[in-house]
Amino acid sequence: MRILPTVSLVVLGLLLTGGAWSQTTLQKQAQGLFKPIPATPPALPGNPASPAKVALGKALYFDPRLSESHAISCNSCHMVGMGGVDLQETSLGHRWQHGGRNAPTVYNAVFDTAQFWDGRAKDLEQQAGGPLVNPVEMDTTEGHVIEQLKGIPGYQTLFAQAFPTEKEPMTFDNVRRAIAVFEATLITPGAPFDHYLQGNDKALDAAQKEGLSLFITKGCVGCHSGINMGGDRYAPFGVVEKPGSQILPPNDKGRFAVTKTVSDEYVFRVPPLRNIALTAPYFHSGKVWDLRQAIAIMGSSQLGQTLTDDEVGKIEAFLGTLTGPQPAVTLPILPPSVATTPQPKP
Amino acid sequence: MRILPTVSLVVLGLLLTGGAWSQTTLQKQAQGLFKPIPATPPALPGNPASPAKVALGKALYFDPRLSESHAISCNSCHMVGMGGVDLQETSLGHRWQHGGRNAPTVYNAVFDTAQFWDGRAKDLEQQAGGPLVNPVEMDTTEGHVIEQLKGIPGYQTLFAQAFPTEKEPMTFDNVRRAIAVFEATLITPGAPFDHYLQGNDKALDAAQKEGLSLFITKGCVGCHSGINMGGDRYAPFGVVEKPGSQILPPNDKGRFAVTKTVSDEYVFRVPPLRNIALTAPYFHSGKVWDLRQAIAIMGSSQLGQTLTDDEVGKIEAFLGTLTGPQPAVTLPILPPSVATTPQPKP
Repeated sequence: MRILPTVSLVVLGLLLTGGAWSQTTLQKQAQGLFKPIPATPPALPGNPASPAKVALGKALYFDPRLSESHAISCNSCHMVGMGGVDLQETSLGHRWQHGGRNAPTVYNAVFDTAQFWDGRAKDLEQQAGGPLVNPVEMDTTEGHVIEQLKGIPGYQTLFAQAFPTEKEPMTFDNVRRAIAVFEATLITPGAPFDHYLQGNDKALDAAQKEGLSLFITKGCVGCHSGINMGGDRYAPFGVVEKPGSQILPPNDKGRFAVTKTVSDEYVFRVPPLRNIALTAPYFHSGKVWDLRQAIAIMGSSQLGQTLTDDEVGKIEAFLGTLTGPQPAVTLPILPPSVATTPQPKP
Repeated sequence: MRILPTVSLVVLGLLLTGGAWSQTTLQKQAQGLFKPIPATPPALPGNPASPAKVALGKALYFDPRLSESHAISCNSCHMVGMGGVDLQETSLGHRWQHGGRNAPTVYNAVFDTAQFWDGRAKDLEQQAGGPLVNPVEMDTTEGHVIEQLKGIPGYQTLFAQAFPTEKEPMTFDNVRRAIAVFEATLITPGAPFDHYLQGNDKALDAAQKEGLSLFITKGCVGCHSGINMGGDRYAPFGVVEKPGSQILPPNDKGRFAVTKTVSDEYVFRVPPLRNIALTAPYFHSGKVWDLRQAIAIMGSSQLGQTLTDDEVGKIEAFLGTLTGPQPAVTLPILPPSVATTPQPKP
């Protein structure tokens, strides 16, 4: 006699809140699989941040004089204000050469546990040096970067302030450290999905929740989880079925180039999905411009499922909730060149 | 008996103030020849500014999708934070082609009465359209710019807000108008020389004042006067003596290309000198990287005088006082591309 009224009250409650019980289940499930982006940049191990180090890193990030041509900066391919990418199939580098793979976003890259499509850099600090010396990107050398910076008087002060305990702070390692610390500030907390994970059930609408549910039940979450929903593990592109050679060019064997292990052929770092709606075109080849098509390809190649248009649309709607407010970045005033500053070699 | 004490007091006053009388003469002379940069952007005739129009112009200025390749924006060659220039001999444009002439600074360009080295655009509004359709710069067409912008949904709102009375605001003319209104905000008031012109005699040190004095007495001021100290008239490069063909290449006849008048051969717009210490390399050919060398060349080619090293050094010191604080510009968050947005053609 005591139990029935209680049950009735629960049922009544569910009716009044429009099915809140099932929503809460989805929300709890999501909270177990994903994490919101923290409100402040995470600390980098062995590379403590300071305002001076961030300021130096920002100057270096935007300074095209770090490239051989003086025409390409980090921001050329990882554009702050444009999703942290260049919206190119593959980036245009030194002398208009094309890079090998699509440029990943700099936003939230600090939460990835490996950098580059093949994970050849373990963190931002290691990554930052790569494009500088890549002949098809910025095409300079570690030695010339330092020679260049030493030729721009204002950088002496910026390095001294950023690394106050070091006698000779102007080193390539410190260039990488400062850039990494600045890049760690480029995070996008506050996306609708973050609010949802933080407990606001109304942050997602019905279609977006259905998309989230499909994202989990179809198996996307098997690779795309955590803060960045990717960026923390490797997977073969085409677990079930290889996509066409245009999308997965045979000559790019992915992580195999790093490990020389046959089982790593066509294995890539699982791309993070944060702000994915802003970062077309998709995949390492950059051949797919439509997020819906990318979702469908993932269904067939990774999960062996033909997703319906309706399912694709709902997953797309959910992925749209991963777009967070992009950080407001004030352009650095770069230290001026002087007559003795090394000149560009375009 | 009454006059002598008065004269003595004046002489005593001059002794006590360290020759203030002669300084004041120089200052008054300077105030008659030059004008400080105003604290706020000037109004553009027929193109009233509004926060929404500035915001649109800023987005367009930084958006590389306005170029055929989607890799070049206005800011690529006129870099905010780097003197408003690209520090290149001539700019790198579409497919790594070199532009014909050195990129002038965008800073304070609003005070110039003609744009481009040959003055072929009368104002910023007319100038803004040029690089967009120049095959060696951004290589697009007026029609494609509008097609591109119409393919980026967020621009609909930005244009509607910027031009609220127009039914079809997304036009090439309005692209140019909005960019011009943003560029008009890129001014650098508050240079030491501005303070000097505004009455602070101590804003310039002794060497800088001697440089100013030489700048006037040697005749530089004959062409470089007004707010921008240039940018408002034309002069032949080599009035007295033509510089070498490397600095003045024979195939670039300057304003002759615009007017087809023989007397305009090798005539160029007098370059403005504001922030000149930040905008190497110099001259339309961009062949001179050292400001001292540029000063010496001007002495011989335009004034028929061999300036001594000491004179060159003092004029250089004076020109350094034309460097004003560069504006702090927050990067715009660009409206995202969507699946139907026209793709780049790199």
